[in-house]
Amino acid sequence: MQEETGDMDRPVEPGHFSASEARLDKHIAGLCIVDFPVAVVLPAGGSGERTGLLTPKQFCTFLNRPLISYTIQTFERVPWIQSIVVVVAKESLDLMMDIIHRFHHRKVLVVHGGSTRHRSIFNGVRALSEGEDGTARVKPKVVIIHDAVRPFVEEDFLHKITMAAKEQGAAGAIRPLVSTVIATTLEGYLDHSLERTKYRASEMPQGFIYDVIYQAYQRCSASDFEFGTECLHLALQYCGTNAKLIEGPPTLWKVTYKRDLAAAESIVKETLSQSACVITGGSAQATELANALQRSMGALDMEVDVISDLIGDNAKSLSKEWNFIQVSVNNYWLSEVGEMLSALEVADRALLHPVVIIWVYLNVSNDDSSASEAMGGEPAAMMEIATGAKLGNILLYGIQLHHSKEATLWGRSVERVAQMSCALIRDRSPALTGQLLQA
Amino acid sequence: MQEETGDMDRPVEPGHFSASEARLDKHIAGLCIVDFPVAVVLPAGGSGERTGLLTPKQFCTFLNRPLISYTIQTFERVPWIQSIVVVVAKESLDLMMDIIHRFHHRKVLVVHGGSTRHRSIFNGVRALSEGEDGTARVKPKVVIIHDAVRPFVEEDFLHKITMAAKEQGAAGAIRPLVSTVIATTLEGYLDHSLERTKYRASEMPQGFIYDVIYQAYQRCSASDFEFGTECLHLALQYCGTNAKLIEGPPTLWKVTYKRDLAAAESIVKETLSQSACVITGGSAQATELANALQRSMGALDMEVDVISDLIGDNAKSLSKEWNFIQVSVNNYWLSEVGEMLSALEVADRALLHPVVIIWVYLNVSNDDSSASEAMGGEPAAMMEIATGAKLGNILLYGIQLHHSKEATLWGRSVERVAQMSCALIRDRSPALTGQLLQA
Repeated sequence: MQEETGDMDRPVEPGHFSASEARLDKHIAGLCIVDFPVAVVLPAGGSGERTGLLTPKQFCTFLNRPLISYTIQTFERVPWIQSIVVVVAKESLDLMMDIIHRFHHRKVLVVHGGSTRHRSIFNGVRALSEGEDGTARVKPKVVIIHDAVRPFVEEDFLHKITMAAKEQGAAGAIRPLVSTVIATTLEGYLDHSLERTKYRASEMPQGFIYDVIYQAYQRCSASDFEFGTECLHLALQYCGTNAKLIEGPPTLWKVTYKRDLAAAESIVKETLSQSACVITGGSAQATELANALQRSMGALDMEVDVISDLIGDNAKSLSKEWNFIQVSVNNYWLSEVGEMLSALEVADRALLHPVVIIWVYLNVSNDDSSASEAMGGEPAAMMEIATGAKLGNILLYGIQLHHSKEATLWGRSVERVAQMSCALIRDRSPALTGQLLQA
Repeated sequence: MQEETGDMDRPVEPGHFSASEARLDKHIAGLCIVDFPVAVVLPAGGSGERTGLLTPKQFCTFLNRPLISYTIQTFERVPWIQSIVVVVAKESLDLMMDIIHRFHHRKVLVVHGGSTRHRSIFNGVRALSEGEDGTARVKPKVVIIHDAVRPFVEEDFLHKITMAAKEQGAAGAIRPLVSTVIATTLEGYLDHSLERTKYRASEMPQGFIYDVIYQAYQRCSASDFEFGTECLHLALQYCGTNAKLIEGPPTLWKVTYKRDLAAAESIVKETLSQSACVITGGSAQATELANALQRSMGALDMEVDVISDLIGDNAKSLSKEWNFIQVSVNNYWLSEVGEMLSALEVADRALLHPVVIIWVYLNVSNDDSSASEAMGGEPAAMMEIATGAKLGNILLYGIQLHHSKEATLWGRSVERVAQMSCALIRDRSPALTGQLLQA
């Protein structure tokens, strides 16, 4: 059984992926040129017993999205990759289809896994050249095999593997060994240790000329299917293809334990928290605050853009930024934040990552009027809007500060707004949305 | 040069470490019995270029404490370990001494590292039997060698390594290989892959009879000192000692990359967030809220104890818990929270980990009086106390809720208090202390 979610045999147009998405990689998508068809097979049938979690690790969720969706996204934003075959266990099929629909993944074909890793990979490889009913498909020139649980592979490395595979027939990522490798005696004693410099850890991705990996699987034995672990080895043994080995970056690491999920989450959060955009509304007081925030948040390693509104050219920020700070000096905050929310929803901006909006209410009057009065004495309104926004993956927080004429007090308040804003943006805590904090 | 911070030749009394500290391990300290002297050498001279950070990774900080202090603490709370020799590069000596003083580490001796890992370890080993001036010290029977960047080793595993070392002369931790190990040709092609089942990754800790490791270092060559990586190998080659290999848990993993620091932080945060203690003050309304919180936070995987005060037997909570929720239904919150702060400070409770206090103000009146009025119209007072507490590593947050007679509204408020409390406890965000949140 196969279910398609995209037209897999037709090349997808380059530039299909927005520049904003590409920013999540260190490299802008589409800079590498590949003029032959490339497909990916992602075995995702593992049970994940090593994470210590009930859910297989590829389906574990952080920032509201399962790990496998991050990995799929990584390949989807590479314009020269035409299709992605995800191989899942029968019992995960519905879950996988749901993920694909929910996060609008295109280019993806889902097939059933086999009883071992090699059988699953072969199912995925075969699905690229023949349909379920046996009809022929236009097979790719090169197929990349990757793990669903290595979400951070970068386009330039995929390009290296793909080009080397096309030239040599096969190519694979390697990494230096982290620990000394030792051979043990049957009784559990040290036999000898390997010389670390002569060996490498074999990692993913690996790339193959389609016919090489297909033939290797057709020729290999039942025992290879059962106990083999290394695709490169099958290509060597059954097709005489010596794989080119390429040293990959540490980001190729595999999410194996529960702690790795925390590490993956921290990497995504850090990437989302590199910059923020302050919208002033144009008033002098708001602009003064925004400029001060730019300095203070800059010192906390967050790059801040200051703009007066989201009209015209400035509207680009909506499809570029993950974090917005809206400064209000009057009572009409609801309309400003409401407009931003609508614009983000129309752009489907928060589909893949939660977007943060911080509403900063600057109280410039001398009396004791507060933000809750500015909101018509109804802090519940803020909570209500935030609750609605959260359903759309937008996290709304509020910060209130008084405009003090005393420089030290003012400086301290601005510093606090900067610190809280950075913390809210980095933590992305859903439980604290709708709160109005005091600076 | 050597600097001592404890009396390293005298056994430390068992029970020296509080039960609360032991709770951070999965095992209660002191359950294993060892009737011979054991010492630890922690090489910590690495430059940490792989983390991508300027600070060597053993000195990188999370939750206000450097990684190496977590590792030292792990050994310090094992009663049968007498002394810990930390070997640091000359330029890190002042930093190391500062860490030892700041976090009240005892049992620690700091020595200078050599130009390679083996030279550093030998310096540490030698310092256990001879003082800087050449005077003899009472050497331990067994020495454990560990990495400063593996903070989560557990007592029962240290016990296994120690006992096996005493019996066999040497013992080391092993783990299954995560990746296939391959041999490469000089030209960068696949030569062959190793059969994964026959090999293991050699990890730390390793244990040795003191004389074995000492002699191995005395006999080994300059080339061993320069290029060798494996202490077990030296013991085999120069003392004929075949090390016993023991499979260790995944927690032995080594903090290598920046993402590993995030993983380590998440492990510590999770351990600190397993339970909380609600103090009601005894009133019926506060008790009702506390019981509701117990249920709701229980559903969010946080175990909640409800007590009426911190007097008598209940005072034990102060040295057992990392998280407190103080419920107030009147105006005297300052005194309640203030007393708790003093008690925690007296007990030096927040020395090693930040303690969270959440003050929950339950407004039971029908009028619109709020927590800020309860605080004498001065929310700044809360911020001031929180700012002071933060200097002592205590994180104070406030949550305000109205006691609604309408069951649905009340249920929703309680649910929100539970969610926010769990989030505040798990995030431990210093930037948000002093805030009064609305439930």
